[in-house]
Amino acid sequence: MTARPALTPLAASLPATVPFVGPEALERTRGKAFRARIGANENGFGPSPKAIAAMQAAAGEVWKYADPENHDLKQALATELGVAAGNVVVGGGIDGLLGLIVRLYIEQGQPVVSSLGGYPTFNYHVAGFGGRLVTVPYSNDREDLGGLLAAVRRENAPLLYVANPDNPMGTWWEANEIARLIEELPETTMLVLDEAYGETAPASAIPPLDVSRPNVLRMRTFSKAHGLAGMRCGYAVGEAEAIRAFDKVRNHFGMSRLAHVAALAALGDRQHLARVVADVAESRDRIAAIAAGNGLATVPSATNFVAMDCGGDGPFAASVLQGLIERDVFVRKPAAPVLDRCIRVSVGPSADMELFEEMLPKALAAARASA
Amino acid sequence: MTARPALTPLAASLPATVPFVGPEALERTRGKAFRARIGANENGFGPSPKAIAAMQAAAGEVWKYADPENHDLKQALATELGVAAGNVVVGGGIDGLLGLIVRLYIEQGQPVVSSLGGYPTFNYHVAGFGGRLVTVPYSNDREDLGGLLAAVRRENAPLLYVANPDNPMGTWWEANEIARLIEELPETTMLVLDEAYGETAPASAIPPLDVSRPNVLRMRTFSKAHGLAGMRCGYAVGEAEAIRAFDKVRNHFGMSRLAHVAALAALGDRQHLARVVADVAESRDRIAAIAAGNGLATVPSATNFVAMDCGGDGPFAASVLQGLIERDVFVRKPAAPVLDRCIRVSVGPSADMELFEEMLPKALAAARASA
Repeated sequence: MTARPALTPLAASLPATVPFVGPEALERTRGKAFRARIGANENGFGPSPKAIAAMQAAAGEVWKYADPENHDLKQALATELGVAAGNVVVGGGIDGLLGLIVRLYIEQGQPVVSSLGGYPTFNYHVAGFGGRLVTVPYSNDREDLGGLLAAVRRENAPLLYVANPDNPMGTWWEANEIARLIEELPETTMLVLDEAYGETAPASAIPPLDVSRPNVLRMRTFSKAHGLAGMRCGYAVGEAEAIRAFDKVRNHFGMSRLAHVAALAALGDRQHLARVVADVAESRDRIAAIAAGNGLATVPSATNFVAMDCGGDGPFAASVLQGLIERDVFVRKPAAPVLDRCIRVSVGPSADMELFEEMLPKALAAARASA
Repeated sequence: MTARPALTPLAASLPATVPFVGPEALERTRGKAFRARIGANENGFGPSPKAIAAMQAAAGEVWKYADPENHDLKQALATELGVAAGNVVVGGGIDGLLGLIVRLYIEQGQPVVSSLGGYPTFNYHVAGFGGRLVTVPYSNDREDLGGLLAAVRRENAPLLYVANPDNPMGTWWEANEIARLIEELPETTMLVLDEAYGETAPASAIPPLDVSRPNVLRMRTFSKAHGLAGMRCGYAVGEAEAIRAFDKVRNHFGMSRLAHVAALAALGDRQHLARVVADVAESRDRIAAIAAGNGLATVPSATNFVAMDCGGDGPFAASVLQGLIERDVFVRKPAAPVLDRCIRVSVGPSADMELFEEMLPKALAAARASA
């Protein structure tokens, strides 16, 4: 065998993996397109028409790199949030920012606390930087804040990841519960509070921003309520010094110019956002009604998706999921024990819901027949 | 002082920096826009109208994440290049891919060889992962291939960065010289061959692709000749196992959907590419003629920019640069000794060249007056 450049021991130990298989890969395997794309927590109600128009208008300008300081977007976000621009960092989606956070705070072997069944991409980054993932099971389909705090203390963990509202279950904690977690957290532990679904949650679930705390990073995105997943634009809000640390490692010219333009326009279109939030809530109810019509329960959700209990074990839910995919409906499901009894259905326009309503009983029947 | 989460020792040691100050930051400081943006090696001739139209048509679809496998674009690139899709990885510009490469191959303290005055963003990534940068001075405004090879051998360096054509000087080596470097390189050293400017170079400067070699990664981009800098789409071509390693650490959902669409359309518009390459060559000649008209020499260039010798030392060139910026012409300059006698002027449409022609003598006169 020829000699070759050696990967670092850490890199060599990592699998070449994809945290989520994309619907396009499934479509290629199936040889045909999905008719309803309601599996990736995307927002089928789409972005603001103003964001679309802004991207179209700016398409000829993309020979220019974007402003590496993301100045205008940070200013607009700061104004919107009532913080200073120095309290905001913009990046390529929350995913990209999560990678930077793990890189900034975790050395190889250090513990990182998250929930068992929590966000796989965060876990991917923890593994990617050699962190040791410590997980705490969900409790009644919610992240177990007390259990997470206990794990942080036991492990003296530098990093804790909590999503509120949660993915993949859609559940949430009220702001006062999150505030208590923050109060009780060791000052030396950074809480990564993923609020990707914050806009679709009850206002009572989102604690006020407090950028005086050096150990909380609030993660937000234009991918969900704003319908700009494909543009990759997320941001973190936090204490100025914690935010400045991103400048040590981020890819300054990594943002797309059109992502800037789209995010600015989306931020300015409150009317569209309010309409989408209402549409999302209506679609969540519709999913719950469809489930109920099939004798199934759903988990209350503050997000743009609903976890539906298929009424059996993990393999049974996997079989239902497979039946839906075979029937041109793209959905996903949680993988961790207990949660895995569910499939996860993203909201979508009426046509998506109608197809789901048509196909769910067939998928259930097929799963029951083969059980 | 309140306790706070600790950055890793490496992260704590890094400065919060921007490898390049963007023209937008200068505009904010100046309080007015530049009239000619010819400093960032962007391509003012712009992207293919087909790429613009494709982005405009797809703008409403950006609620969907992009395919995390980048399947269609990798296939198209593979076909174009005569390799397999498994020999191609797509990422957020060459910058993003360079970061992944350093992460994959360099542990803290390991040596990385590059040229003194070479690409600052590569150096930023080396520092960011704790690598030890070993630099070799340019020789006659070209990267010193023999010197780089000697440094690799002396240091037993796992990584070597070479840009061909070069940035910031625009010079190039013929393919046979690069091929000889590859032949002589230790098999355990990965050569990162940055060919961002490959399309504007003489065909004789680009060695044929050989994806059987595990120790060469050829870096390409849609930012330069294709005029899509603001979309962030670059790729690496190499041996399949070396390419697969990116899947261990890349941000799978990090690509913009519109970047895919634009890159695919750009790739299909050979006519536009040929026209831009001709425009770039013409503009390089124009820059050289403007320099000559002011009694200045330029460095022969295979890129979309020209290094112009201001005829003095580094501070004098900096003064000329400052005079141009004050006169609404955005240019940049190399920072390393000897190279720093030059300013670096990117190509651009006639209006940019006319303004540059008008302002250069004034900036030179002002610099001479204050020298």
